[in-house]
Amino acid sequence: MHSIPIGVLGASGYAGRELCGLIAAHPQCHLAFATANERRGQTFRVRGGSRVHDIHMIGHDEAPLGDAALVFSALPHGASVEWVGRVLAAGAKVVDLSSDLRPGRGGSTHPLPDNVPAQVPYGLPELFREGIAESPVVANPGCYPTSILVALAPFVRAGLVSPDALVSVAAASGVSGAGASPKAELLFAEVTENFRAYGAGNVHRHLPEMTDSLHRLGGSFDLLFTPHLLPVDRGILSTITVPLAAPLADPMAVLREAYAHEPFVEVTDALPALADVVHRNVVRVSAVTVQHVRTPTLLLFAAIDNLVKGAAGQAVQNANLMLGLDETAGLPL
Amino acid sequence: MHSIPIGVLGASGYAGRELCGLIAAHPQCHLAFATANERRGQTFRVRGGSRVHDIHMIGHDEAPLGDAALVFSALPHGASVEWVGRVLAAGAKVVDLSSDLRPGRGGSTHPLPDNVPAQVPYGLPELFREGIAESPVVANPGCYPTSILVALAPFVRAGLVSPDALVSVAAASGVSGAGASPKAELLFAEVTENFRAYGAGNVHRHLPEMTDSLHRLGGSFDLLFTPHLLPVDRGILSTITVPLAAPLADPMAVLREAYAHEPFVEVTDALPALADVVHRNVVRVSAVTVQHVRTPTLLLFAAIDNLVKGAAGQAVQNANLMLGLDETAGLPL
Amino acid sequence: MHSIPIGVLGASGYAGRELCGLIAAHPQCHLAFATANERRGQTFRVRGGSRVHDIHMIGHDEAPLGDAALVFSALPHGASVEWVGRVLAAGAKVVDLSSDLRPGRGGSTHPLPDNVPAQVPYGLPELFREGIAESPVVANPGCYPTSILVALAPFVRAGLVSPDALVSVAAASGVSGAGASPKAELLFAEVTENFRAYGAGNVHRHLPEMTDSLHRLGGSFDLLFTPHLLPVDRGILSTITVPLAAPLADPMAVLREAYAHEPFVEVTDALPALADVVHRNVVRVSAVTVQHVRTPTLLLFAAIDNLVKGAAGQAVQNANLMLGLDETAGLPL
Amino acid sequence: MHSIPIGVLGASGYAGRELCGLIAAHPQCHLAFATANERRGQTFRVRGGSRVHDIHMIGHDEAPLGDAALVFSALPHGASVEWVGRVLAAGAKVVDLSSDLRPGRGGSTHPLPDNVPAQVPYGLPELFREGIAESPVVANPGCYPTSILVALAPFVRAGLVSPDALVSVAAASGVSGAGASPKAELLFAEVTENFRAYGAGNVHRHLPEMTDSLHRLGGSFDLLFTPHLLPVDRGILSTITVPLAAPLADPMAVLREAYAHEPFVEVTDALPALADVVHRNVVRVSAVTVQHVRTPTLLLFAAIDNLVKGAAGQAVQNANLMLGLDETAGLPL
Repeated sequence: MHSIPIGVLGASGYAGRELCGLIAAHPQCHLAFATANERRGQTFRVRGGSRVHDIHMIGHDEAPLGDAALVFSALPHGASVEWVGRVLAAGAKVVDLSSDLRPGRGGSTHPLPDNVPAQVPYGLPELFREGIAESPVVANPGCYPTSILVALAPFVRAGLVSPDALVSVAAASGVSGAGASPKAELLFAEVTENFRAYGAGNVHRHLPEMTDSLHRLGGSFDLLFTPHLLPVDRGILSTITVPLAAPLADPMAVLREAYAHEPFVEVTDALPALADVVHRNVVRVSAVTVQHVRTPTLLLFAAIDNLVKGAAGQAVQNANLMLGLDETAGLPL
Repeated sequence: MHSIPIGVLGASGYAGRELCGLIAAHPQCHLAFATANERRGQTFRVRGGSRVHDIHMIGHDEAPLGDAALVFSALPHGASVEWVGRVLAAGAKVVDLSSDLRPGRGGSTHPLPDNVPAQVPYGLPELFREGIAESPVVANPGCYPTSILVALAPFVRAGLVSPDALVSVAAASGVSGAGASPKAELLFAEVTENFRAYGAGNVHRHLPEMTDSLHRLGGSFDLLFTPHLLPVDRGILSTITVPLAAPLADPMAVLREAYAHEPFVEVTDALPALADVVHRNVVRVSAVTVQHVRTPTLLLFAAIDNLVKGAAGQAVQNANLMLGLDETAGLPL
Repeated sequence: MHSIPIGVLGASGYAGRELCGLIAAHPQCHLAFATANERRGQTFRVRGGSRVHDIHMIGHDEAPLGDAALVFSALPHGASVEWVGRVLAAGAKVVDLSSDLRPGRGGSTHPLPDNVPAQVPYGLPELFREGIAESPVVANPGCYPTSILVALAPFVRAGLVSPDALVSVAAASGVSGAGASPKAELLFAEVTENFRAYGAGNVHRHLPEMTDSLHRLGGSFDLLFTPHLLPVDRGILSTITVPLAAPLADPMAVLREAYAHEPFVEVTDALPALADVVHRNVVRVSAVTVQHVRTPTLLLFAAIDNLVKGAAGQAVQNANLMLGLDETAGLPL
Repeated sequence: MHSIPIGVLGASGYAGRELCGLIAAHPQCHLAFATANERRGQTFRVRGGSRVHDIHMIGHDEAPLGDAALVFSALPHGASVEWVGRVLAAGAKVVDLSSDLRPGRGGSTHPLPDNVPAQVPYGLPELFREGIAESPVVANPGCYPTSILVALAPFVRAGLVSPDALVSVAAASGVSGAGASPKAELLFAEVTENFRAYGAGNVHRHLPEMTDSLHRLGGSFDLLFTPHLLPVDRGILSTITVPLAAPLADPMAVLREAYAHEPFVEVTDALPALADVVHRNVVRVSAVTVQHVRTPTLLLFAAIDNLVKGAAGQAVQNANLMLGLDETAGLPL
């Protein structure tokens, strides 16, 4: 089989660079082009598998979109959807890493191009695999939602969560989740030895894609999501408090059964740590029954690498499905 | 006025060293002795105010307990209460930084010495100042409870928290909270670029002192406490989800009114960050109303330095009260 | 005595904020104004002594220069000298933290204002105290040069360094030395778990002020200076290889004698570490005789906080001298 | 070809775990056993390639030494050589990661077992490949020496270094180089935001293997080696000052020519950074001509991952040669 040409739009950000590395190391694909308007002409060194690769950036307008079988758009929220339209018009498939095509559209009011459908598959294969393989365009989930939905889904589908519950999520992310653009609050001197919440009060733009997905899974409870900024490069840990409809004897069994055949979900008795998941395309989850409370309550913990299973790795997973390849091809387990 | 002699038992741990620094810099006190059995004979360099001080460690048995007006015990949980008895017998006052004399006794079953009362004041002056000044012995609160109780108390006292609520706390602490004894999981290589929960399921030994204090404040709700280990030296951030009995128009006003006259509580619109509080004897708190949920819900954030307001600073605050000094003497605001 | 009004130009950078904190906590001075053109109208929270202070930034043009007895200029290299002229014209004294008035002028070719002398005292009091107190303008040394010159000076003055030697300095600095302006290479994700040299080959703009100072001290050897970027917020450690004219029995004695009466130099047998000096206005130095080499050789180690003894603290030390105050007033030892 | 069985003695340290991961991911080998006396019975999770592997530890005495074709000894210095003898007696080959069999024997005075030769190949293939493939036992170089020797060798071999020079090396290592045993000075709280030298004065036990190797390469100059401890997990950067016999027009050309055919040496114009080399079996080197000095002088920079090219990766490289495999098999480039 000849190698499949793949393009990356917006390749100079952290997710874009991770995509370039994964494609460069992919056994059945190769990188046809990588674009970055502000860094055009520059070369970025990326890791892919156990090697490093030098990636040359061209401008978006220079990209030969039609030469690629599939294009990843890692362009900023709001700006991505227009390029999704151009890629489709050029005859290539597209995985959109922005929130532009996710449920709620990340709050974007940018008009959809005519050739972009209003509803596209939400590419979280472990929960919603159906339809991904057949669609020319897939919306890649947000990093926080990936960790939270994978942990919650088995309990929601089984109707175990109290319908009038408030499910509260305290999540913490490494700074690479905030992007590679220089901002004062992301300087080393501001982040080291520090920790803080942000976007507090349930106002994060990732909320709609989570509530929509939970409704699809049958959940009618409220979700409260509070993100925090960690002094680490990579990784998200979501700590989830779940009031249950009734006591649950063995929550770990629910997780184990749900994900017995999913190669990218690790169900572990040990509480997941960021060090377990960085540079890997996995969600690591664990469940603990809460003691000393009257309401039956569950604690769920989910850890991911925000740039891999939370972005570029999951995008490749979706691309593998869309291209008819093995879902795990080229992905670090 | 002549300077007051102070002793420190267990001075080689992080809280003990912080105590030595605070006392060395205290305008009305001086360090009479500092003990550390395993490090006896060694000298520790500590920060106090804007200077550094060399502190010489003697064995516990060598300490001239009766020469001190007040002794801090920073001995390990379980081992401390016996020395509290000896200090009292020698005629000095004592602030116990261990959990041995807090509500629930930190789970300790070590018998109380005859001269140690079963109930001693819980030294969180902002909430329970009464009785501290008159008592010869005070139990210094835990670091996590200090942050959580200061944030919750005004709402509990005002009856604003739903009585059947589950109040869920996700708290994160720097590694100095785990002590200065070498353990493999506290090595730099294990902690850097990592983050994880521990003691999950509401089983932390700090829980009884929190639930007891909340009952004293009039709360009958359940508390769920989930601690995490941060890759930082110092600091605790507690993120608290509070289901309310009824919608609350201005939660910040509740905090501001409660703490208008407390020099060591900072009520801020900005979400508190660890960098705001390290090396200072303050709790920094903020409140946010949760959007997009049916149950009226509040988010509280509280940040402290676990070694200062969470341990040594608060102990000095209690000592100041017990010695008839200004409560703020010698304390970094 | 009434409090002395002090101004700070360029107060939003790391050195500028440190200056504001030091002046806010200074027992005989107060902050008359703080300027920051790009951040004008904003409020910065700074540490000063054991308190925090909110500092309001005005534009440079709004600054009432003549209201201050002394103004610190923490403006960027090249832009500072013009404001030095304006401050002098307004009748205030000035400490310039830029390299504009240091020997070699940091390579600047910006013309000197008419009222600014071409040669001003180089404000490293421990080496060149003479003339500082009398001058209306003083050039505050660079951070790297402060650490290196204090360590080398006693050996240079005593003629102990081989005249045809190559003295090689490997120095490492925390990122706050690179300033508070957002640059991609200073983002947390780029700096954490990383270490690298920069400006290699003896081309750093701090070189002329070092070679000039060494000549004044009587040194004719060559200096090679290689800076590195550390994944820490603050601190510089300089490791200096010094070929000697002849074997030296007790290099520590040379240091101890030279600095016996200097409150801001700590001569220690233990190798200095960054943790010993951060947030303090000291240079900590140590000397070790090199084994197993034919040429008699010395190793010198010097640690400072780049923002305190390497910038703002030393600037206050100079200001104290210029204002007739005690040299140590308001400075954390 | 059937898979080759490999054993690891001392597998619970950082180098031992890295070895287990590399062997688990090696295309032509598998892990026959892994030993750790104090952690026997425990399971360690290690990374290997893009997967994680659970490694079960048995006691040293339980190891079926004769079942392995080759055994790595990652036992502590002093304790290793006895086990080298046992492995050879059992008929397996052995790569010793300790300093016990390196030139100078790391200062060890432990007697050699009868069946262990006094001189074994020093396994730095890029410099001394000859004899490795044929020897039943190879001494794996130290981490610091690997970085320093690879950088210096081309210049030494070409006679470019001044014979009476003092070559001064300031090297900095991540804490994993100090091992996985809990020590107070390696706790996160002691290392974060800190930096210091150690073992100063040219007394490091790695010195003899460096001076011996330099003599073999034809160098007669003196070497001064000063190690430092970095607040990072992994990586070594060596900064080397080299007085030359004569000016050298193009030092990079010397490096490029020397290593044109070495897959594990990267010669780069950009100064090497730790982030370029972590988790990879490479030495990344660069050379810069020093300006503004009278003696012609070169600066060399070399970066490695201390656990990969500085330990486990290089050990696998040696094992590949000893087993007749491709030298790069199973190694992350």
